[in-house]
Amino acid sequence: MLGICEIGTYISHNKISNFDKKEQFEINDIFIKEKIGFQSLSKSLDDEKTSTMCLKAFEKIKNKIDLTTIDCLVLISQNPDVKIPHTSAILHKELNLSSNCACFDIGLGCSGYVYGLSIILSFMQNNGLRNGLLFTCDPYRKIIDNNDKNTSLLFGDGASVSYISKDYKYKAKSFKFGTNGSKYENIFCEKDTLFMNGRGVFDFSATTIPKHILDFLEEEKISIDNIDRFILHQGSKYIIDTIRQRLKIDKEKIPFKANLYGNTVSSSIPILLEDEFQSKECYNNILISGFGTGLSWASAILQRKNNAN
Amino acid sequence: MLGICEIGTYISHNKISNFDKKEQFEINDIFIKEKIGFQSLSKSLDDEKTSTMCLKAFEKIKNKIDLTTIDCLVLISQNPDVKIPHTSAILHKELNLSSNCACFDIGLGCSGYVYGLSIILSFMQNNGLRNGLLFTCDPYRKIIDNNDKNTSLLFGDGASVSYISKDYKYKAKSFKFGTNGSKYENIFCEKDTLFMNGRGVFDFSATTIPKHILDFLEEEKISIDNIDRFILHQGSKYIIDTIRQRLKIDKEKIPFKANLYGNTVSSSIPILLEDEFQSKECYNNILISGFGTGLSWASAILQRKNNAN
Repeated sequence: MLGICEIGTYISHNKISNFDKKEQFEINDIFIKEKIGFQSLSKSLDDEKTSTMCLKAFEKIKNKIDLTTIDCLVLISQNPDVKIPHTSAILHKELNLSSNCACFDIGLGCSGYVYGLSIILSFMQNNGLRNGLLFTCDPYRKIIDNNDKNTSLLFGDGASVSYISKDYKYKAKSFKFGTNGSKYENIFCEKDTLFMNGRGVFDFSATTIPKHILDFLEEEKISIDNIDRFILHQGSKYIIDTIRQRLKIDKEKIPFKANLYGNTVSSSIPILLEDEFQSKECYNNILISGFGTGLSWASAILQRKNNAN
Repeated sequence: MLGICEIGTYISHNKISNFDKKEQFEINDIFIKEKIGFQSLSKSLDDEKTSTMCLKAFEKIKNKIDLTTIDCLVLISQNPDVKIPHTSAILHKELNLSSNCACFDIGLGCSGYVYGLSIILSFMQNNGLRNGLLFTCDPYRKIIDNNDKNTSLLFGDGASVSYISKDYKYKAKSFKFGTNGSKYENIFCEKDTLFMNGRGVFDFSATTIPKHILDFLEEEKISIDNIDRFILHQGSKYIIDTIRQRLKIDKEKIPFKANLYGNTVSSSIPILLEDEFQSKECYNNILISGFGTGLSWASAILQRKNNAN
């Protein structure tokens, strides 16, 4: 049985303040603090590509990993370094991994970490692989129009790496996935500039996701009260607040922590999970849920070792 | 147990002849027929995007599939329709699939079909999914410099879809994967133009791949004589001939059939496999092997139903 042993993350140190944009977008402090919830955004620097940010995340956990044993490397990104090759091959070079290491990229957005966790666990288990690295990184800085209120107040740049092996802290009990391609135009980037229909994305997050989570818990025969933490994609504070109210979850169980760096796309869940891994409090059941571009969504229940049902 | 039930493919009807380029590149008929082996190349039209070519491949098998039952859709491509969303979500819309269908893209090149087969089979089995579609499509036309001899004589545009379910014709017995990121610059495209070091790619194909196939067969305890067909990525006729000679395989067991359409990247293996699925001859053991950008390689042994070991 494989699971998540360690998580390392990186959030770009370069910050811009959303308070500086109050005049430009005719917004006030309450809108910034309570609605979007992002007071500042992390922005990657020119020399921070997807691969370099992934390597900075890896620095945080490198002392715990024997790179000669890594036999699988997967990257979730819709912003690869280059068109060809896959960026996971570039990471393979930079980490000087063995030639028997399987590498591939997965193209997904905000649902990507949950999908990627299922994909890497399934792939490794079925192929007898033992030690894997699951990276996420989507530096949106390059595709944001700074004059677009719908996107320029939201996204921050970060990266994560999850070390997958047998001495895990959390295993994935089960997953549930969904797609509504008919609404893909709500989050769209042909080449260079991200477009987002904020109302459409909010409606999707506020209706599809609570129902999906309830259906998932019912299928898994787990009471919502038995979930100790809900680590949801940090799309905005208002989205988290709305889902919390609709599911009637206690506020302390469903954190919003992205207020100083922004929506980091596929890295938002592992950045919060890293805190849980380092916390002295041991939560037995964590539900993670990612949702966004596609429209796509995915949830999983993580269970702490020795407390698995 | 899941396996491959049906394969549909599409090769762009628009053809260009390599004989017309003899003067431009100072090449002769023997070079075209015996070395690269591609007499003509299929080139996608302006209105043929990755998703539209995938849908044309799907047309070939649509009568055998109940779309309401599809719960997984995966696309292998390094040339998605747009940056965001994943092209599999666009296919989800076009095929009007159910909201419980998991969709994601995988970024890989010529090794992509073999990787993709393992990824979709593992993911579906571990998540209890039943009916999947695995697409491949990489229209390189848009990234080829027509004045570059190293690339403009080689690549053709095609697509494929493999229907994955329980009533399969072939199951995948086992897989083996490899990566050499330190040589990724041998096949490189930053944004718009493909670069290829032909000598570097040939050396890789002629040395790494035969050894990898022999190692794989030894690990699986299968004699090379017990493999009935070797369906290899159709990089060029010279690459297939060289691997055949190094492995001492009978010519009729290791076909080169891409002479009239070119190297279709991740679609080259399923295009040949389609012939095997439709053939009256029933081969029990087929070895498939893909290799290219990354540098990346992957092989699998497919076994016909009712003849599995």
